[in-house]
Amino acid sequence: MTNSSSSTSHQNLVHKVNFSKPRSFTKTVKSDLKETFFPDDPFRQFKNEPSAFRKAKKTVQYFLPVFEWLPKYGFKMFRYDLLAGITIASLAIPQGISYAKLANLPPILGLYSSFIPPLIYAVFGSSKDLAVGTVASASLLLASIIEQAVPVKENPTLYLHLVFTATFFTGIFQFALGFFRLGILVDFLSHSTIVGFMSGTATIICLQQLKGMFGLTHFTSNTDVISVLRAVFSQTHHWRWQSALAGVCFLVFLLATKHVKKKKPSLYWVSALAPMVTVVIGCLVAYFAHAEKHGIQIVGHLNKGINPSSIQFLNFDPKYLPYTIKAGIITGILALAEGIAIARSFATIKNNQIDGNKEMIAFGMMNLVGSFTSCYLTTGPFSKTAVNYNAGCKTAMSNVVMAICMMLTLLFLAPLFSYTPLVALSAIIMAAMLGLIDYEEAYHLYKVDKYDFCICMSAFLGVTFLSMDVGLMLSIGLSIIRALLCVARPPIANLGNMSNSTMYRDIEQYPSAEKVPGVLILQLGSPIYFANCTYVRERISRWMDHEQSISDSKAADIEHIILDMGGVTAIDMTGIGMLTEVLKSIERKGINVLIANPKIEVMEKLMLSNLVETIGKDSMFLSINDAVEACRFNLRSSKKLIDRSDSTNTSKVETGDIVV
Amino acid sequence: MTNSSSSTSHQNLVHKVNFSKPRSFTKTVKSDLKETFFPDDPFRQFKNEPSAFRKAKKTVQYFLPVFEWLPKYGFKMFRYDLLAGITIASLAIPQGISYAKLANLPPILGLYSSFIPPLIYAVFGSSKDLAVGTVASASLLLASIIEQAVPVKENPTLYLHLVFTATFFTGIFQFALGFFRLGILVDFLSHSTIVGFMSGTATIICLQQLKGMFGLTHFTSNTDVISVLRAVFSQTHHWRWQSALAGVCFLVFLLATKHVKKKKPSLYWVSALAPMVTVVIGCLVAYFAHAEKHGIQIVGHLNKGINPSSIQFLNFDPKYLPYTIKAGIITGILALAEGIAIARSFATIKNNQIDGNKEMIAFGMMNLVGSFTSCYLTTGPFSKTAVNYNAGCKTAMSNVVMAICMMLTLLFLAPLFSYTPLVALSAIIMAAMLGLIDYEEAYHLYKVDKYDFCICMSAFLGVTFLSMDVGLMLSIGLSIIRALLCVARPPIANLGNMSNSTMYRDIEQYPSAEKVPGVLILQLGSPIYFANCTYVRERISRWMDHEQSISDSKAADIEHIILDMGGVTAIDMTGIGMLTEVLKSIERKGINVLIANPKIEVMEKLMLSNLVETIGKDSMFLSINDAVEACRFNLRSSKKLIDRSDSTNTSKVETGDIVV
Repeated sequence: MTNSSSSTSHQNLVHKVNFSKPRSFTKTVKSDLKETFFPDDPFRQFKNEPSAFRKAKKTVQYFLPVFEWLPKYGFKMFRYDLLAGITIASLAIPQGISYAKLANLPPILGLYSSFIPPLIYAVFGSSKDLAVGTVASASLLLASIIEQAVPVKENPTLYLHLVFTATFFTGIFQFALGFFRLGILVDFLSHSTIVGFMSGTATIICLQQLKGMFGLTHFTSNTDVISVLRAVFSQTHHWRWQSALAGVCFLVFLLATKHVKKKKPSLYWVSALAPMVTVVIGCLVAYFAHAEKHGIQIVGHLNKGINPSSIQFLNFDPKYLPYTIKAGIITGILALAEGIAIARSFATIKNNQIDGNKEMIAFGMMNLVGSFTSCYLTTGPFSKTAVNYNAGCKTAMSNVVMAICMMLTLLFLAPLFSYTPLVALSAIIMAAMLGLIDYEEAYHLYKVDKYDFCICMSAFLGVTFLSMDVGLMLSIGLSIIRALLCVARPPIANLGNMSNSTMYRDIEQYPSAEKVPGVLILQLGSPIYFANCTYVRERISRWMDHEQSISDSKAADIEHIILDMGGVTAIDMTGIGMLTEVLKSIERKGINVLIANPKIEVMEKLMLSNLVETIGKDSMFLSINDAVEACRFNLRSSKKLIDRSDSTNTSKVETGDIVV
Repeated sequence: MTNSSSSTSHQNLVHKVNFSKPRSFTKTVKSDLKETFFPDDPFRQFKNEPSAFRKAKKTVQYFLPVFEWLPKYGFKMFRYDLLAGITIASLAIPQGISYAKLANLPPILGLYSSFIPPLIYAVFGSSKDLAVGTVASASLLLASIIEQAVPVKENPTLYLHLVFTATFFTGIFQFALGFFRLGILVDFLSHSTIVGFMSGTATIICLQQLKGMFGLTHFTSNTDVISVLRAVFSQTHHWRWQSALAGVCFLVFLLATKHVKKKKPSLYWVSALAPMVTVVIGCLVAYFAHAEKHGIQIVGHLNKGINPSSIQFLNFDPKYLPYTIKAGIITGILALAEGIAIARSFATIKNNQIDGNKEMIAFGMMNLVGSFTSCYLTTGPFSKTAVNYNAGCKTAMSNVVMAICMMLTLLFLAPLFSYTPLVALSAIIMAAMLGLIDYEEAYHLYKVDKYDFCICMSAFLGVTFLSMDVGLMLSIGLSIIRALLCVARPPIANLGNMSNSTMYRDIEQYPSAEKVPGVLILQLGSPIYFANCTYVRERISRWMDHEQSISDSKAADIEHIILDMGGVTAIDMTGIGMLTEVLKSIERKGINVLIANPKIEVMEKLMLSNLVETIGKDSMFLSINDAVEACRFNLRSSKKLIDRSDSTNTSKVETGDIVV
């Protein structure tokens, strides 16, 4: 069945390049839009549903995931969720108070923020493991931006209102991102950026806790290391040893429980309950020992009662709008990135699916409603979610349990927490933050990818030495420049034949690959766009010069160039112009150009722009091997050359990759 | 020699993936930096020179191309250059005066700018065809930015000084770009952006000439269509019919000569000399008919003498710096893009090489020295260069000839041109600009690439309805978003086997390609970066769902997934994290993952991050076909399935792509 002579002549090739009519414009646009905005194709699951009722049901279930899991929910699952909910509630109380202090907000806001938002998330959220709450980095970032508009000391009420407004914008922004399916924006926060930003924030937050540790009352509102350290060490005469002693005790206790958890993961509850224990011990000590008289500050009065409305406090004064909108958008993106990354990690462990855009809508609703009910920015913090997961949560019901616990706390127990010593909160924050300084990951980045390490360090150093938003922007900027550089400088490899096969591989990677005499095979490795046209042209001409300078000695001139377009997934008009020009200039040198394996999108453009006619359909092949065979068939060069290629390749010519 | 059984078992494969040690960090950084900043490898030509003297000579020749061509220069070539130089000088005089008026500058500046800069370019420039001069679009853009700082009517002297300062910054900027080899920035002006911007500018400039045509004295400094048309039609009572009549006559004459050239390209000199003829006729008519008394304005007094020094006029007042720097950089980039694109086009025709970075240094020197000698922004205008090329220029000597002609004009003839009627200049500009409104190219863009058409139209509409810099930025922004989208949404294709061959191709493009039963082959088509990780993960899971939903009916479950990484030229840490996660989640479903043809950079990262161990070296193959054979060998599925695959593929298994 083998047709040995067919492979040497183009006309008899079994498989040819598909020259059929390009797809219609509407079809390509539809597919492009789908890939851009609906890459996860959320409706695929009920596209094939027969009845309209089931379709409607599935749609409701899609938009409100609660209707998906609630009907199947039973007591058996509730047992797990109850336990998990109570555990995370015990973590939520001290964390809520601590992070609210971090954001310069009344501590009760931290408790409010763990009541309403988890309920909203339970309805809209698609993650089964995420525990809702406030986070340290976003709290600090929010404070640092709003402080620029109104220092909290000057006007704490206005400051509070601006925080509600920023939370409102966060909600709107997150909802809009999800609704318009712009999840793609969150993708631009790379892993390295997040590692660097988190480590930098954790460093700053740790250092800031020295304020609470030493019982200082005045402090800087700047967030860079130098300001913070100066503020701590310029007030050595105000340091309180009682506070410092208590702080160190609490910190050692908390770190010890973390160590226990690390050694024995089944004892996760020891470290989960530790903050609550710290707070309770702190309260008791403060109450009975009259800590305030010994220089240990306490949280102070906490109101009884659940969240009051805050909708009337939203402040849209144009004077403050730039700050509230900026704070809303930046913290919103950050909160999304953190929350979605965490939800996704845990979903992967359990082999569930997380819909990024749906999560965005859930987060947006949560913050929108939160801003109306005296809450501030919430997301899915790592610590709480990990505890929730470890405690064996089954559904978002654990969030509901936590919310009910918080409600009971707010209604009956809140005043008890007013004795919480600030130093206990500082110790809790410090213990949590120390675990977030991810030097191991930074070292891993350094080892594997130096550029990623630079991105990570730019975020870290930017955050610690400049300011949080500058550090974040710097790092995102570098990441985007990297992405653009990767578009602008695509690798172009010189291919050689792997002996006794039809495979052609990069000679640098596989030094055993042999060049085909008289033929230069170049693999273009990326879309050809305006940004890389000049480069591609230069690189091709450099390969030609390089090849000619080598072959000068061996007297084997290049007569054919095969451009392997298998890696070129798209081309734009500048690219087509460049290609035309390159083809002309190569052919003017008397060298023949062949194209191998053009992809569908490129093929369409080549046909529409009539470049196919310029190249000639006979010069386009489905595989490099077909093109090489055609070259060999046409080699007009000296006998010697033919002989040489014959002797090395006879077996290949006979069997080729066309075997019938 | 054929080993038919070997191809079915991985251990016996002839070619395996190269698992050798990754290249050293310094080696990869060196190669990355070289590809980024020295893609054209400018020193390759004298790297192999033996003697130090020859090396030094080549280096001087590299930095000062004049030493390359001048020693070989003879009278034979000079004849051509003399003719070409005189021709472009006759074009330079009217164009210089016109464009200086366009930039609200004294007309004599246009003549100055055609004297010194061409001499500088002749020393530093690497193009043989480029003719140096001022250009309309950059003149108008420069004026529109400096007008924002100081309206020319308020303080013409300060305005002039700021223009010199902007030119100074242009020179510094262009020189720096070339010196630091940042030619990459110019690449971000895509073909479509330039087409749109040029057409938009030409439209605006044409409409602005209505001022000169109708002999108006007051006019708007805005550059948008609406302001310009309002300014023209709100002054209908000031229209001068004499001026309009003269204007129409000149315009018809100029367009007729252009038509002649189009019909008979050998008569190019008719259209090249036409502007000069127009000016001379205009001067004569104006002089003898006392045109001024009949409402036809003339250029007015022109000083005798060559360029005075302007170095003392450079104004670094911080108040104006933002404007001068902005104008310098924007017009500098635009001038570079135009000049280099034109130089490159003509070099391609003659099969010469143009070094972008060297051209930048030449342009920078030209504008730097220009700003010290009463010149303003110069570059390589298309019209002049085309005339130069048509007139048969051989080297940059034609620029020297032009400069000498200009010197003679400035020394002896300048006063004669003071009678030039403004309407003649308007007609010259209009005739030149009408040819730049490239609606044919816009239609071509529409036909071939709709997104490029949008980029082009955004530049065109932005320039005509908003302002020139906004239009330019808008279009560049869209181009960059497109480039980022192409990074963020790489195509991932499902491959099938082309019958009776070892080729695997996209099923969408080649519907005849057959899927391998039980095996899903996915081709990842771009670098895997933070920006596309989420998408790649979603797309892979969607392909799996899609495949499973189809195979449900046929009862052929997927047991293997082959990821063809041949198109993945790079991967970052976020990508490695994603890949790890995807591999785990696929394997948790009981599906086996195989990797085909990883590229060198990806391979290095996989090894450094130990992902190779996770995947298993046995699951990595050099070609898709090897991987498919390995799958087939391992298929644990029902007899039926094995039978089916056997019947279709026996011949392939026996011959494979391993033929010894």
